[in-house]
Amino acid sequence: MAAEHQHFLTSDNINPNIRKMDYPVRGPLVARAGQLEKELKNGVKKPFKDIIKPDVGDCHAMGQLPITFIRQVMAMVFYPPLLDDPRFPDDTKERAQTILNACKGGSIGSYTDATGLEIIRKHAAEFIEKRDGIPCNWENVTLYGGAADGIKKILKLFVKETNGKRAGVMIPIPQYPLYSVTLDEFGLHQIRYYLDEDQNWGVNIEEMQRSIDEAKKVCNPKVLVIINPGNPTGQVFTRKNVEEIIQFAYKENLYILADEVYQNNINSENSKFYSFKKVMTEMGEPYVNMELASFMSCSKGYTGECGFRAGFAEILNMCPKVRAMFYKANTAMLCPPSTGQACIEPFVRPPEKGEPSYDLFIKEKEDILNSLKVRAKLIVETLNSFEGITCNEVQGAMYAFPRIRFPPKLIETAKKLNQSPDEFYASEVLENAGICIVPGEGFGQVPGTYHFRTTTLLPVDKMKIMLERLEAFHKEFMDRYR
Amino acid sequence: MAAEHQHFLTSDNINPNIRKMDYPVRGPLVARAGQLEKELKNGVKKPFKDIIKPDVGDCHAMGQLPITFIRQVMAMVFYPPLLDDPRFPDDTKERAQTILNACKGGSIGSYTDATGLEIIRKHAAEFIEKRDGIPCNWENVTLYGGAADGIKKILKLFVKETNGKRAGVMIPIPQYPLYSVTLDEFGLHQIRYYLDEDQNWGVNIEEMQRSIDEAKKVCNPKVLVIINPGNPTGQVFTRKNVEEIIQFAYKENLYILADEVYQNNINSENSKFYSFKKVMTEMGEPYVNMELASFMSCSKGYTGECGFRAGFAEILNMCPKVRAMFYKANTAMLCPPSTGQACIEPFVRPPEKGEPSYDLFIKEKEDILNSLKVRAKLIVETLNSFEGITCNEVQGAMYAFPRIRFPPKLIETAKKLNQSPDEFYASEVLENAGICIVPGEGFGQVPGTYHFRTTTLLPVDKMKIMLERLEAFHKEFMDRYR
Repeated sequence: MAAEHQHFLTSDNINPNIRKMDYPVRGPLVARAGQLEKELKNGVKKPFKDIIKPDVGDCHAMGQLPITFIRQVMAMVFYPPLLDDPRFPDDTKERAQTILNACKGGSIGSYTDATGLEIIRKHAAEFIEKRDGIPCNWENVTLYGGAADGIKKILKLFVKETNGKRAGVMIPIPQYPLYSVTLDEFGLHQIRYYLDEDQNWGVNIEEMQRSIDEAKKVCNPKVLVIINPGNPTGQVFTRKNVEEIIQFAYKENLYILADEVYQNNINSENSKFYSFKKVMTEMGEPYVNMELASFMSCSKGYTGECGFRAGFAEILNMCPKVRAMFYKANTAMLCPPSTGQACIEPFVRPPEKGEPSYDLFIKEKEDILNSLKVRAKLIVETLNSFEGITCNEVQGAMYAFPRIRFPPKLIETAKKLNQSPDEFYASEVLENAGICIVPGEGFGQVPGTYHFRTTTLLPVDKMKIMLERLEAFHKEFMDRYR
Repeated sequence: MAAEHQHFLTSDNINPNIRKMDYPVRGPLVARAGQLEKELKNGVKKPFKDIIKPDVGDCHAMGQLPITFIRQVMAMVFYPPLLDDPRFPDDTKERAQTILNACKGGSIGSYTDATGLEIIRKHAAEFIEKRDGIPCNWENVTLYGGAADGIKKILKLFVKETNGKRAGVMIPIPQYPLYSVTLDEFGLHQIRYYLDEDQNWGVNIEEMQRSIDEAKKVCNPKVLVIINPGNPTGQVFTRKNVEEIIQFAYKENLYILADEVYQNNINSENSKFYSFKKVMTEMGEPYVNMELASFMSCSKGYTGECGFRAGFAEILNMCPKVRAMFYKANTAMLCPPSTGQACIEPFVRPPEKGEPSYDLFIKEKEDILNSLKVRAKLIVETLNSFEGITCNEVQGAMYAFPRIRFPPKLIETAKKLNQSPDEFYASEVLENAGICIVPGEGFGQVPGTYHFRTTTLLPVDKMKIMLERLEAFHKEFMDRYR
C-alpha cells in the first residue's frame, strides 16, 4: 500500500543529523546474529550449535544475577502490601518506605521532580562523599534515565555556532559510540584524541594537544570527554593521569565530562579509581573551581541493572544562570523514570554492617566482582596466546579490546569486499564460529590498526567455550590468509 | 568559590534553543507553592492551612490508587521468587512470566531492543486492533520512555532547513506545552492554529488554513499535531472532525502526529473516541496510505502510572528507508526503560472475563473512571456559577480550561505589574487561597482572552474544599477590581 503513496517524510528530507547517526555496537552483525539464531532454530545446519553473544555490556543477559537487596526493595515499592511480608528483611523495608514516603501520594507511579526525588539525591550525595572523602552538596546531584540520558542533556548545552564554527567535543579514540552518535545527532564537532595502546590505553597529553590544535581551525573546542575506567579499552587512569588531564582542560578552557560509570569495576590489584571530583578538589585552586559533570549508573558494576535506565550525575561549579536554564529545559521531559530512581536508593544506600541483609549483600557483590576479575584475566591471557593478537590488561570496566595484526593477504581481501579488515574478521567469526564480537572500527582506532571488542561478562564455562571456538577459527583463518 | 572562577559555559554561550525553552506547567508558581508549603510548615500564618495543587495531571499524587493487577505483575517481574507466592493470582503470574521469558537472561534488568520487547509490542498491537476493530501490525508498534519521549523522537526527524526556511509544525492553541518546548529545543517553527472555544474547543478548518497559509511565508510546514481528547481543553473530536482534519493534512502534505494518550478518559455520554488510525483506514484511498504516528501512554486513563515513563506508538506508512534510520538513531539510547515496558504488558493485556483478577480489576477501573466523570462535571458546573467564568464541558481527558472575563481595572493593574492578567490572577489565587492553578498563557490563548487550567483529579472532598476556597477568593477579587 505504502509504496503507491508519496511519502511526506523521506530519506532525502529527513533531519540530516539523524541520517548520519550510526551506532556500531548494535550494527548489522547483531541483526545477522539474530538471523542465524532463527536459522539454527529452524534446523539449518551450521558449524556451531548456538550463537554466543558477548558483544554488549549487558550483565544480566549473560547470566549475572540481580542483587537480592535491590530487587526486594523494588518489589515493595511497586506493591506496598509486601511491606507486611515477614520474608523481607527490615533494612529492605526501610529503604522501600523511604522511597514511598518521598513519592507524591505515596505512589511510585506519580511524577517526581525533573531532577529526581530529593531524598535519593541526598543519599546519592552521601554515596559520593563516602567514595571520595570529600563533601558533596546534594543540590549538585541529579538523577537521569540512565547515564546516557544525562550525558546527552549536558552535551546538548554546548550546541552553538560561533564565528561560523561549530562547538567541538574532545572524545577519546577508541571511544564508546554513544559519544560519536550523540555528537552527530547534535551537529557537534568530534575532536578525536588517540589513547596510547602501548601505554595500556593511557592518555598522552601531547596527543591531546595535537588533536585540539588541529581542531581549533574548524571548531570551537568546548568539552573534554573522559571515560574512566575505559570503554572499550579497560584502562584505569592513575592519579597522575587524572591530574594531567585536569591541567590540560584548565589550560584549554574545557568543560570536563567524566564518564565514570565503571568506577566499581576495578579488576587489577595495581589499579585504583580516582574520581575527577576528588583529584580536582585536592589539587586546590584554580582547579577546584572548574566545571565538571561526573556520571554514575546502576547499569554496570556489580548491579548490572541496565534495563531500568538509572543513572545520576554530580555537576560541579555550573554557572547559576546556566543551571536554571538546564533545570528548566529538563522539566519538559517531566521526570526520569521513577522506577530507575527506586533502584538508585538501595544502590547508594546498601545494607550496612549489622543490618539483616548485609551478609547476603556482601556475598553477592563480592562473588560477582571477584568472578569478573577472574574472567577479565582469563580472556586477556587466552587472547594473548593467539597468533597475531595482543591484548592489554583489563584493569577496569568489562571489556577487552585486543589488537590483531592481519596478514597482508587478508587486508587485500577485505579491501576487495569493500570492508575494513576488522569488520571482515568479525563477520567471519560470526559466520564460522557463531560468536558475535564488535569490530574495532565502531569505536575508532589508529588507522592501520585493527581490533575487536568483547565483554568479559560470559560465565566462565561459556567463556571457555567461546575462547575455544574462537581459537580454532582464528588458527584456520590466519592459515587461510597467510 | 564558583563566583571567582570564569565559567566556560555561560548563559551567553549556551545552546540558544535551551535558553529559549520554557515549560509553564512547572513554572514559577509551582516553585512558589513549594515555598509557601515550607512557610506553613514553619508556622508562618497564611489565610489557608494547606496548599491545594490540582495543577499537574498526576493521578496518584492526588490520591488515585494504582491498579492492583498491574502492580502485582510488576512486583513479580522485579522479584521473581514471588511467582511462588499463593497470594498472587494466576493471571498476574502469567503476565509476569510472559515478560520475564522475553527478557534476556530472564531478567528485567537486561537491555531490551531499542523498539521494546517484541512480545509486548505484539500485545500492544492486539490492544490497538481490539480498540479499532482494524488490523494492527506489531512491527509498526514501538515502545518509549513515556509518550513524550516518542513524540520528541518523531518530531526530531523533521528538523531541516530547506531554501533558507525551517520546518514547521502545526500545533493547536491552547496546547500542551510539551509541544512548544520541544519545537523550541529543536529549532522547529511553531504554526499555531486556534481551537474554537465557542464550539467546545473544536477544530475549524478555515482557521487551520489561515494559519498554514501565513506560516508558509516563513517555514516549510511538515507536521500536524492533534491532541484528542484535548489537553488542556478537554474536547473529544467527533468522527467528522477527525475526517476533516485528515483531509486537510492530506491536501497540505502533512505528517499527522496524533496525541491520543487520553483515549481512555471519555467523560461525556455524548462523546466517543475515534482514533486517527481507525478513521483514516475507514476513509480508504488515498487517506489510508498517509503517514501517521499515534501515541498512547500508561500515564493517564485509569492507570495513572506517569512516573514509570511508559508509552507506545503505532507508526503507520513510514517510508522504509526512514524507518531504518529512525530505528538506528534510537538504538543509541539503548532501550526504553524495561520497567515501563513491564507496566505496558498488563495494561494492554488486562484480565479477561473468567480470569481470577477480572472482578477486582473491573471494579477498580470503573470506580476510577466513573469518579473522574463525576468530578469533571462538578468542577465545570461550579466554575460556570462563578461571576465572569465560563467553562466548556470536559468531554474527555482530565483538565478544565475555564475562561475568565476580567474587569478592565484588573487588566490595567496586571499590565502595570508587567504580568498578563491570567498570570496575575493565578498568582493571587495561590497567595490568597492557597491553590496552585496554571495560567492560560502557558498553553496559549486567543489574544485578549484569559484562562486557567486545573485538573479534574482532586478527590471529591478536596475538590469541594478547593472550589469553595476559590469561590470565596474569586468573589472578593472581582469586587476588588470592579
